[in-house]
Amino acid sequence: GPVAAVVRELRCVCLDFTPGIHPKMISNLQVIAAGPQCPKVEVIATLKDGKKICLDPEAPIIKKIVQKILQSDGSAA
Amino acid sequence: GPVAAVVRELRCVCLDFTPGIHPKMISNLQVIAAGPQCPKVEVIATLKDGKKICLDPEAPIIKKIVQKILQSDGSAA
Repeated sequence: GPVAAVVRELRCVCLDFTPGIHPKMISNLQVIAAGPQCPKVEVIATLKDGKKICLDPEAPIIKKIVQKILQSDGSAA
Repeated sequence: GPVAAVVRELRCVCLDFTPGIHPKMISNLQVIAAGPQCPKVEVIATLKDGKKICLDPEAPIIKKIVQKILQSDGSAA
């Protein structure tokens, strides 16, 4: 089936960041590059409970989280 | 406006990977953690021309691309 198109409004999505998120809580991470719609990178995490939160792309912990998710192979990390 | 919900079918999305993608071609990156719907991590990039491609999460270059996008601040990197 086709990957659903994501419709975004033409402005920044993230107003504030949620700290203290553990990689295992995240089911889906969206990294939106800086661009015409928003001058800064935005990192939106969908949690396993379905909640969507914004993460601070400049926080070192977020870079670690992204790497951790990239390495996870489904087994408990 | 609310962030649109992404509807995904309950199986892996990525069948093959597209090599040789430059970070500046990417407008949006989606990292789907391994989970019930698919046993492996999936990295879907939406390119600036709107095309969606899959990237190999285990390729070191992909980890570099993710970091580059996280660091980009909209100016030409």
